[in-house]
Amino acid sequence: MTEQTELRRLRVHESVEEKFPKEAFVEAFDDLDISTELVGDGESYEATDAVASFAPREEFLDAGWVHVIRAGYDAFDTEAYEEAGTPLTNSTGVHDTTVGEIAVGYMLSLARLLHCYRDHQNESEWYEPDYERPFTVENERLCVIGLGTLGEGVARRADALGMEVVGVRRSEESTSSVSELYHPDDLHEVIGGARFVAVVAPHTPETDELLSAAEFEAMRAEAY
Amino acid sequence: MTEQTELRRLRVHESVEEKFPKEAFVEAFDDLDISTELVGDGESYEATDAVASFAPREEFLDAGWVHVIRAGYDAFDTEAYEEAGTPLTNSTGVHDTTVGEIAVGYMLSLARLLHCYRDHQNESEWYEPDYERPFTVENERLCVIGLGTLGEGVARRADALGMEVVGVRRSEESTSSVSELYHPDDLHEVIGGARFVAVVAPHTPETDELLSAAEFEAMRAEAY
Repeated sequence: MTEQTELRRLRVHESVEEKFPKEAFVEAFDDLDISTELVGDGESYEATDAVASFAPREEFLDAGWVHVIRAGYDAFDTEAYEEAGTPLTNSTGVHDTTVGEIAVGYMLSLARLLHCYRDHQNESEWYEPDYERPFTVENERLCVIGLGTLGEGVARRADALGMEVVGVRRSEESTSSVSELYHPDDLHEVIGGARFVAVVAPHTPETDELLSAAEFEAMRAEAY
Repeated sequence: MTEQTELRRLRVHESVEEKFPKEAFVEAFDDLDISTELVGDGESYEATDAVASFAPREEFLDAGWVHVIRAGYDAFDTEAYEEAGTPLTNSTGVHDTTVGEIAVGYMLSLARLLHCYRDHQNESEWYEPDYERPFTVENERLCVIGLGTLGEGVARRADALGMEVVGVRRSEESTSSVSELYHPDDLHEVIGGARFVAVVAPHTPETDELLSAAEFEAMRAEAY
């Protein structure tokens, strides 16, 4: 938006429930001087400053601003918004911390066999794995495919744990968490040198089938 | 050891098998110009430069140097070694990386519910936890009790993941991974403010019963 408008009336479409308890979503605005109401379908948005929604609705085009509460906005007809002159925003970056922590948590679990301990815990069995099986992620090589907000979140945490992090991205823009940067043309080479491969690229026509049987073949036998 | 002696003959006592494949232990010395042999019980150690062992044996006192292959050496009679003038060393620090990674791995698993996903995976069930249940460890407070090699290993990794790390130790010596340092006298206060409490103190007469019912009472209901 190039012009500034004061936000007085916000509507929250009940489809946010797909991801959040809808009442909690509305209550989160309590501290602000904004009238916030939860709405269902069949409303007019002519006098609505802004609407936050998970799902798209044609009538949103009449609102002053439409915000998609998720990172992915492929369900919204961006061309129609452009034609109507209605600003459409999304929640890029919202998963930075969660995805980074999940990825690092899984690498540590796989290396230290935490999932196996869990299985044995469920059976009330004491478990001692073979000496050679568990390993430490420190100094192991992680290849992060895609270095957007999410990829950076994974790379930064892995780097902080002492892993050797290499990245694959189309642009040549480097980032401090990554020791080496590769072009997607060298995908097989970089995959073959890694103990862990993390795919953090969006699903777009360009990334469709980026990883398939040949890429799994290129991975080392002991790679994750 | 104040005097230097050349190490020519190393014996590895078969009790190392408690922790390692014993042949692999001996093979690890292949690249060095040291004669290394695996021995059982009933040997004389008069002409032995050094012996590496998991378990204690009285005859080790005759060796030039005895190395315990674990961090804990409480099974060895340190007074007898002092009297005999036989140097006794242990493997302090050997678990720095493993313990640090396990502790951080478990915090991430508990926060992101990786153990629950594992349970459902075993049942081939798709699992979506309640929105409020998983959380991120970033900005959560971890209290590390004991800041030796292991405690530091935990604190450093937690700090790197953006956690707020406080420590409890007897000495006033600070460490960069810890934002605040507490004396054991303030244990209940610091435990009460933490989301995670990690006990990384050795079991000694002073730490015996350091954590008991009252300390669990002092912890927050949602703390781990």
